[in-house]
Amino acid sequence: MNAIRIELSTNKKQKPEVSELGFGKYYTDHMVILDYDASIGWHDARVVPYQPITLDPAAKVFHYGQTVFEGLKAYLTADGPIRLFRPRKNFERLNRSNERLSIPHLDEELALEALKLLILTDREWIPSAEGTSLYIRPFIIATEAALGVNPSTQYKFMIIMSPVGSYYAEGIHPVKIFVESEYVRAVKGGVGNAKTAGNYAAGLKAQENATKQGSSQVLWLDGVHRKYIEEVGSMNVFFNINGTIVTPALNGSILDGITRDSIIQLLKHWNIPVEERALSIDEIVEAHGNGSLVEAFGTGTAAVISPIGELLWLGHKLSINNGETGELSAKLYDNLTGIQKGTVEDPFGWILTLDDREATGVSAVNAQSHKS
Amino acid sequence: MNAIRIELSTNKKQKPEVSELGFGKYYTDHMVILDYDASIGWHDARVVPYQPITLDPAAKVFHYGQTVFEGLKAYLTADGPIRLFRPRKNFERLNRSNERLSIPHLDEELALEALKLLILTDREWIPSAEGTSLYIRPFIIATEAALGVNPSTQYKFMIIMSPVGSYYAEGIHPVKIFVESEYVRAVKGGVGNAKTAGNYAAGLKAQENATKQGSSQVLWLDGVHRKYIEEVGSMNVFFNINGTIVTPALNGSILDGITRDSIIQLLKHWNIPVEERALSIDEIVEAHGNGSLVEAFGTGTAAVISPIGELLWLGHKLSINNGETGELSAKLYDNLTGIQKGTVEDPFGWILTLDDREATGVSAVNAQSHKS
Ligand SMILES: Cc1ncc(COP(=O)(O)O)c(C=O)c1O
Ligand SMILES: Cc1ncc(COP(=O)(O)O)c(C=O)c1O
Repeated sequence: MNAIRIELSTNKKQKPEVSELGFGKYYTDHMVILDYDASIGWHDARVVPYQPITLDPAAKVFHYGQTVFEGLKAYLTADGPIRLFRPRKNFERLNRSNERLSIPHLDEELALEALKLLILTDREWIPSAEGTSLYIRPFIIATEAALGVNPSTQYKFMIIMSPVGSYYAEGIHPVKIFVESEYVRAVKGGVGNAKTAGNYAAGLKAQENATKQGSSQVLWLDGVHRKYIEEVGSMNVFFNINGTIVTPALNGSILDGITRDSIIQLLKHWNIPVEERALSIDEIVEAHGNGSLVEAFGTGTAAVISPIGELLWLGHKLSINNGETGELSAKLYDNLTGIQKGTVEDPFGWILTLDDREATGVSAVNAQSHKS
Repeated sequence: MNAIRIELSTNKKQKPEVSELGFGKYYTDHMVILDYDASIGWHDARVVPYQPITLDPAAKVFHYGQTVFEGLKAYLTADGPIRLFRPRKNFERLNRSNERLSIPHLDEELALEALKLLILTDREWIPSAEGTSLYIRPFIIATEAALGVNPSTQYKFMIIMSPVGSYYAEGIHPVKIFVESEYVRAVKGGVGNAKTAGNYAAGLKAQENATKQGSSQVLWLDGVHRKYIEEVGSMNVFFNINGTIVTPALNGSILDGITRDSIIQLLKHWNIPVEERALSIDEIVEAHGNGSLVEAFGTGTAAVISPIGELLWLGHKLSINNGETGELSAKLYDNLTGIQKGTVEDPFGWILTLDDREATGVSAVNAQSHKS
């Protein structure tokens, strides 16, 4: 049985101004920690003051990168309850990543209960201004101090939270994307469909180059043929070709984004044709040339929808929709953020609300218990 | 200017018995730490008591795996000086890994001086029994506490050391290797030629499967054609085909092993034909079929030479040299370990000796100074 204990901070931090939030710079007063040891399994779920972690320098995470993570958000409006967007999907995906990285399965309901307790404990940290949210980062690291290359016998699961500002300072606007021809992020048979640290390390160099070229993100091509479109930095990608919305199929080397899945469901709900299939950069260049490439956008938890105004491919600039936000991108953005904030009806049951008043009684006593 | 300061441990650990050493389980009394901050560069090189490191849970290494490492060994014989095998090669490779992972360049001579000082400080930890050595693990981790996906502005370089036992309890003997057909370790354009954590995380699952099938390691095939031989777990791989020694060329997705380079030099020195080229698993199966596959072996710092007695490929067992250690494998092992231990002449200038007597005077005073 796993009870979640709470140790409250006696030294609360000053909260930043909304205008200073940015992304992932400030952390709330508390965090969740859960330990794993091969001999006892996951144990000692707790909400504790946000604190440094102390590890042996031989801890496996430092040497062999055995780690997975997730990213999701909690939203607050002036009068509404706290709202979480499809949080179970994140813990399900965390376990799929765990499976790939040989990390032991985590009880998803326990993780969700711990997250709820953490959010209620730090509810004053959730910003409510337009475009703001509380970014939530669950993650697992291998902590065993041993240099043999094999799965760790010890892990820590943690959740930290960061109030984040509006992704779009002046309303949704298009980005420039660099189509990468030299570097590869992931390949079939690798770990590209897991949310694990190494995938992001592998992308840093290309991201730096893209920035130098004036683009804000990298569009990855597949590592085998070097021509099929994969995904963008931390987003999946969609193209509107003559009214049909096309996105790369889940092929084993891209992340199955929860925003991606939500967009596909919304499009189907609206009877807009959507295709998940292999999509080459040549097809995009051709569609651009003959005028059938109407719109392009990225999807992910951070920006929700990120319209693409330009692709930079082998030195050529492909302007899309005159570099402006497309109609469908705007509609999807409004609807999805509306569902997240509670201003648009949620026909899919995607929102999990936390009653803020529960918070008053937050204590170790009303923390729920779970089978491990 | 960078002086290396020393803080000696007042609480020395008990040294393990030679029979208990294993690999990477015990750590010496001291470690090296060097900090990096974007505003001051690398600074404060120090030898300090082996100690836990304390990091913010948002430190980039936990989330985005921005980290590199190295592995080398120091050897001691009963009467000889302390011997390091080609240590500059490791710090050069560390910097090539740094370049790929967007980690700032490290002064290789400073790193080497810090290592020497550490070894002299912990010289009593170097085992001298047959087959034993002191394994040295330099590594760098990204420590900035920020969730944006971009290179860290802060890092820690560390060196930890572990006395390790003989890789071969009863003399050199062949291993069984599983040729992987499902999972891929790395692909051209990725980070396969860098010594970075994510590559090892990506290999854990395949390694677990190989172990279940009775093999001790995985032989990786390339991620594009899924047929060209890459490398083995933490070793490069060589095949003796009718007297010509063939090893995969450095193609961007495998590590340029220092043992691999040493073996190639040794073979050339002996006028044995050696080829670095693309080598498919089909060619190996054919050579096995027609009797021209004479020997196969892996090369790496840990085992030096690891003869391969059997390949398991798509359910077929390919026995090599009757599952016994080949003539050339044995000769290479004897010569390379002989050079390392000082019992065989070193015609290449590979050995850097540390005069044990220097140790008597180890102090912050005689630590050398360096430009940063
Ligand atoms: C590599 C990658 N692709 C896609 C996404 C989008 O996934 P989601 O919509 O679940 O945020 C993310 C970010 O989470 C990501 O890191
Ligand atoms: C992936 C990989 N390949 C090859 C090697 C062999 O390299 P070296 O001979 O420098 O130890 C290692 C180990 O260091 C390794 O980790």
